[in-house]
Amino acid sequence: IPSLQMQTVTLIPGDGIGPEISSAVVKIFEAAKAPVCWEERNVTAIKGPGGRWMIPPDAKESMDRSKIGLKGPLKTPIAAGHPSMNLLLRKTFDLYANVRPCISIEGYKTPYTDVNLVTIRENTEGEYSGIEHVIVEGVVQSIKLITEDASRRIAEYAFEYARNNQRSSVTAVHKANIMRMSDGLFLRKCREVAETYKDIKFTEMYLDTVCLNMVQDPTQFDVLVMPNLYGDILSDLCAGLIGGLGVTPSGNIGANGVAIFESVHGTAPDIAGLDLANPTALLLSAVMMLRHMGHHEHATRIQTACFDTIRDKKVLTGDLGGSSKCSEFTADICHRIQDLD
Amino acid sequence: IPSLQMQTVTLIPGDGIGPEISSAVVKIFEAAKAPVCWEERNVTAIKGPGGRWMIPPDAKESMDRSKIGLKGPLKTPIAAGHPSMNLLLRKTFDLYANVRPCISIEGYKTPYTDVNLVTIRENTEGEYSGIEHVIVEGVVQSIKLITEDASRRIAEYAFEYARNNQRSSVTAVHKANIMRMSDGLFLRKCREVAETYKDIKFTEMYLDTVCLNMVQDPTQFDVLVMPNLYGDILSDLCAGLIGGLGVTPSGNIGANGVAIFESVHGTAPDIAGLDLANPTALLLSAVMMLRHMGHHEHATRIQTACFDTIRDKKVLTGDLGGSSKCSEFTADICHRIQDLD
Ligand SMILES: CC(C)[C@H](C(=O)O)[C@@H](O)C(=O)O
Ligand SMILES: CC(C)[C@H](C(=O)O)[C@@H](O)C(=O)O
Repeated sequence: IPSLQMQTVTLIPGDGIGPEISSAVVKIFEAAKAPVCWEERNVTAIKGPGGRWMIPPDAKESMDRSKIGLKGPLKTPIAAGHPSMNLLLRKTFDLYANVRPCISIEGYKTPYTDVNLVTIRENTEGEYSGIEHVIVEGVVQSIKLITEDASRRIAEYAFEYARNNQRSSVTAVHKANIMRMSDGLFLRKCREVAETYKDIKFTEMYLDTVCLNMVQDPTQFDVLVMPNLYGDILSDLCAGLIGGLGVTPSGNIGANGVAIFESVHGTAPDIAGLDLANPTALLLSAVMMLRHMGHHEHATRIQTACFDTIRDKKVLTGDLGGSSKCSEFTADICHRIQDLD
Repeated sequence: IPSLQMQTVTLIPGDGIGPEISSAVVKIFEAAKAPVCWEERNVTAIKGPGGRWMIPPDAKESMDRSKIGLKGPLKTPIAAGHPSMNLLLRKTFDLYANVRPCISIEGYKTPYTDVNLVTIRENTEGEYSGIEHVIVEGVVQSIKLITEDASRRIAEYAFEYARNNQRSSVTAVHKANIMRMSDGLFLRKCREVAETYKDIKFTEMYLDTVCLNMVQDPTQFDVLVMPNLYGDILSDLCAGLIGGLGVTPSGNIGANGVAIFESVHGTAPDIAGLDLANPTALLLSAVMMLRHMGHHEHATRIQTACFDTIRDKKVLTGDLGGSSKCSEFTADICHRIQDLD
C-alpha cells in the first residue's frame, strides 16, 4: 500500500465503555497503517447562548473541518430536558441517512445464516419531527412530517448506495395503505427515483409484511429504504438477526461528504473500565468510515482480520462467548493485520 | 360434555380460500359437537345512503345480535376508494383490542422454539386516525392521535387478559423517548392501570429494543401491549417467529362481549377452490373464539387434535410441508376429535 496523505477524523470516544473501544480502534488502525489522524472531542451537549442545547463549539468546529466523525456510545439524556445526543448530532450536521449493513458473521452463531442486507433510514423527519400538541384534556396528537425533498434525497441515496456497492435491489418500506398521504408521498418519490436507476430492481412492501418475512427468511432482502421510525425499528430488528448491536456497524451520512460512524449499542456502565468490552461494532463502523473515505484496501484488511478473529473463536470477549479481554481481542486483530503484511 | 345451549356465531367466509377453510372449521366444530350454530354473512362493503361505505345491513344485524363473528380473509380494496374491510369492521363494531397469541407449534420447525407470548394492539386510533393534510406543496403531515380513554381501555384489557390467562407479566411497548406527549400518555395510562394489578409484573420497553430482543430471544416476552401501528408491526413479526400467518390466530375484541376472530393471512387466489389451503389459522382463531365464549373444553379438544395432526406430520397441507388436501387435513383432525370421545 503506497503511503497516503493522512486525513483528520474527529473521534468522539463517548461514555462508559466508549473510551476503551475507541482506543481499541485506534490501535487497530495503527497496526493497519490506516491514513487517519484522530482529533478527539467531547460532544456532550451544553447550554448555548439562548438556553438552547448545542454541541460544544470545539467539537462542532472539528467536525466542520474534518467532515468525518467516529463516535462511541453516549449516555443521554444526562439531565432532565437534556436532548438525545444522537438526535442532536443528526440535526447539527444534517445527517439525513442512517445506513446499517447487516451481514452474518461467520462463526458467530445466530438463528440465521447468510443475512446480507442494508437498511437505509431517513434520519431527519417523519415521526421524529418533535411536533406534538394536547388538543383537549386527554387527547394528544403527534405530527409525522414527510417532505418531498427529504423523501427524494433518501431515495436517491439508497439507489446510489446500491449502485456503488454492487447491490441489485432496493425495497421501499411503507404503510401507504394507512398513511396514504405521507407514506404515499415517500413512496411516490421512491418510484420516481427508481425510474432513473434502471440497473437496480425496485420493489415496495408494507412494513408489517417486511417484519414478517424478515424473521422467516432475511436472505430475500437487499437494500431497504424507509422513513425515520420504520428505520429505527427495522435496523434494530436486523441487527438482532446477525447477533445484536455489539457487532453491527452504523453510519450517519449528511450532504457534502459529512458523516458520523458509530456503534449503536449502549455505554455498558457495568463493565466500563474493566477491559471487558467488545469493540467490534465500533471497529466495523470505522471500516465503513474507511470505505466512505475511499480507503477500501485498509477497510478490507481490518475487516478480514476482525472476522478471522471471530471465526477462529480463540480470543473472544465475553459477549461473543469467550473470556478474553478487550485488549487481547484487539491484539489478536492487530497481529493478524501485521501477519498480512 | 353435557349438552349445551347452542349459540349463534356470524360466519364471514370471505374471499379466495375463505369458503374452503371456513367449511373446514364448520366440519371440525361438528365433529367436536361445539355448541355453535353458524349464520353466514357477506360483509363486503356497500355504499350506504350518504355515499359512505358500510357493511351490508344483514351482516351488521347478524353481528349485533350474535355479538360473535368468525371471519376468513377478504380481498380489499375491491375498487378505488373502497375501504380496507379490516378497518371498516374494526370501526363498525368498535373492536378496540387486537389479540394475537403466538405460541410455538410442536413439530412445525422454525428458527425458534418455546415462543409463548401474546401481542395486544390498540385497534382504533394512533397512526390509524386517517387524518392527513398537505401543509404546502411537497410537505405532508399525518396525525397520530392518542387518547387517555383508549389508552386506559387497552391497558386494562391487557392486564385483565394476563390475569385471566395465567400470564405473569405485561410489557408496554412505546417510543415515548421520541413521541413524548402521545406515547407518553399511552405509557402513563399503562403505569396507572399497572398499579391496580399488583399480581402482574409490569415493564416498559422501547419498540426498537423489543424488536431487537424479540429476534434474539422471544422467550423473554409474555403479554405485550402497544399503540396501533406498533401492534401492526410486532404482531406480524411475532407471527413470523412461529411459522407465519398460516398458523397464527387473531381476535378483535370490542366492548360488551362483541368480538370477531379471524385468520390474518391473505385470500391466496392462486390456490382458491383447489382444496389445497391450510385452515389452521382460521381454526385456531375459532378456538380462541370458543374460549372467549367460555367453551374451554371444546376449545382444548379441537386445539389438541389440530396440534396432534401437525406434530404427527402424516397429513399436512403444502404450506406446512406436506402434500395433503385441505379436506384430508380436516378429516384427520375430525378423526382425532372423535377418537377422544
Ligand atoms: C436513542 C434514540 C433517540 C434513537 C432513535 O430512536 O432514533 C435510537 O433508537 C437510534 O436508533 O439511534
Ligand atoms: C390490512 C391492513 C389495513 C391491516 C393494518 O395495517 O392494520 C393489516 O396489516 C392488519 O394487521 O390487520
